[in-house]
Amino acid sequence: VSLILTPVPGIPLIKAGDDLSKIILSAMERAGLSILPNDILVIAQKVVSKAEGRLVNLASVVPSEEATSLAVETEKDARLVELILRESCEVLRKRPGAIIVEHRCGFVCANAGIDHSNVKGDGGNDEDWVLLLPEDPDQSAHEIQQKLITLSGCQVGVAIIDSHGRAWRNGTVGTCIGLAGVPGLVDLRGKPDLFGYQLKITQVGAGDELAAAASLVMGQADEGTPVVHVRGFPYAFRETSLKELIRPREMDMFR
Amino acid sequence: VSLILTPVPGIPLIKAGDDLSKIILSAMERAGLSILPNDILVIAQKVVSKAEGRLVNLASVVPSEEATSLAVETEKDARLVELILRESCEVLRKRPGAIIVEHRCGFVCANAGIDHSNVKGDGGNDEDWVLLLPEDPDQSAHEIQQKLITLSGCQVGVAIIDSHGRAWRNGTVGTCIGLAGVPGLVDLRGKPDLFGYQLKITQVGAGDELAAAASLVMGQADEGTPVVHVRGFPYAFRETSLKELIRPREMDMFR
Repeated sequence: VSLILTPVPGIPLIKAGDDLSKIILSAMERAGLSILPNDILVIAQKVVSKAEGRLVNLASVVPSEEATSLAVETEKDARLVELILRESCEVLRKRPGAIIVEHRCGFVCANAGIDHSNVKGDGGNDEDWVLLLPEDPDQSAHEIQQKLITLSGCQVGVAIIDSHGRAWRNGTVGTCIGLAGVPGLVDLRGKPDLFGYQLKITQVGAGDELAAAASLVMGQADEGTPVVHVRGFPYAFRETSLKELIRPREMDMFR
Repeated sequence: VSLILTPVPGIPLIKAGDDLSKIILSAMERAGLSILPNDILVIAQKVVSKAEGRLVNLASVVPSEEATSLAVETEKDARLVELILRESCEVLRKRPGAIIVEHRCGFVCANAGIDHSNVKGDGGNDEDWVLLLPEDPDQSAHEIQQKLITLSGCQVGVAIIDSHGRAWRNGTVGTCIGLAGVPGLVDLRGKPDLFGYQLKITQVGAGDELAAAASLVMGQADEGTPVVHVRGFPYAFRETSLKELIRPREMDMFR
């Protein structure tokens, strides 16, 4: 009946082409962690992106005029801004130090999720390497899930998460960017409450609650635990997509 | 090394004047759950509010002109809107079915957190009773914490949570409204990453990550498990306040 979140120790530094599913299962085996049906593996975006070769050297990026102008306005590196714009479909807010965008995958986040810390490139000045989000995080989650199922024989779920800032509140929280099997949204609309009233609307962002929980045990500045094993997730697996968690633009009062 | 979240079974329906700390410890004892130093009790707002007698009968509420006008605009009960306005310091957005406010405690939420489901009043028509948030949730958390420490002899933390909607994303997630001992924000600014770079800003909303995790195991339409016992929270206790998690108005780009 408990929900148990266990960081998987001993995940090595990940490089392009690595097979994350194999690496995760090996690390779990070395750590004596079992895998059972309905378990979930929550994976930090960073290692998925690295395995997919999403490192970019800023020295190779030529900023557009738009990027150059936005870079001045936001006091950022124009080459980084160029990548942010390429990875986004809309800039929602900008000010010195911050560019908040709708990522091309639909979610709202700072800097299109492009990461500068803990990135070590393949030559040149390390400070010039940045890491883009996976090309298609839902697809990444799906592929990792399928391989985990094949290798382990267990029907498991996968969530890929990142740390996102929020409107109104300080601090980042772990947030889903890709899902496989794990429901993003659980719809309790119409389920009667204790006294038999109809609940009018209760849609729970279960995938994001899971992401936040896993983030808590991943730590932040330590890449040693980018994978968390979860047992006891209370909702049934099904076909899922991150899209469940994205509020349609026309329903969003805070764009 | 695992984070373990266990719903506390057997919490009875709570009424005004009930001693939540005693009730929680009794329920834990009956369920064979131990309590240890550094454990956290996460408590749903609803039971704290009920214990504090925050039920209001709408039949006793006389709406102001402002409330009446806003009720027409949002298609809500004018008496409920009157309570929402009394509990808020600013209306941020309004449209049919939704009033998003800054609650007088500083956080942004729908309908000032006033709850209609699972509320059974002290007479009259049950549908007329609504439940306000605790008067001062930080203070409530602090009082419950102090009593838990006295009764159990263990230095434990307390978080009071509610389900909040979010900008940009579908679904509610468990969110802190009161804290005692548990840090809301964990500041990792300046902590070097794996390769020795300085992290420029990493403030983690650890209290909200905890709230989301606990919400996952509380369930939603079932008031049977409004308390979750947490073991393995990775950050140290200290003097805390919900204010840590509230973004100052002038720093908020999404008001």
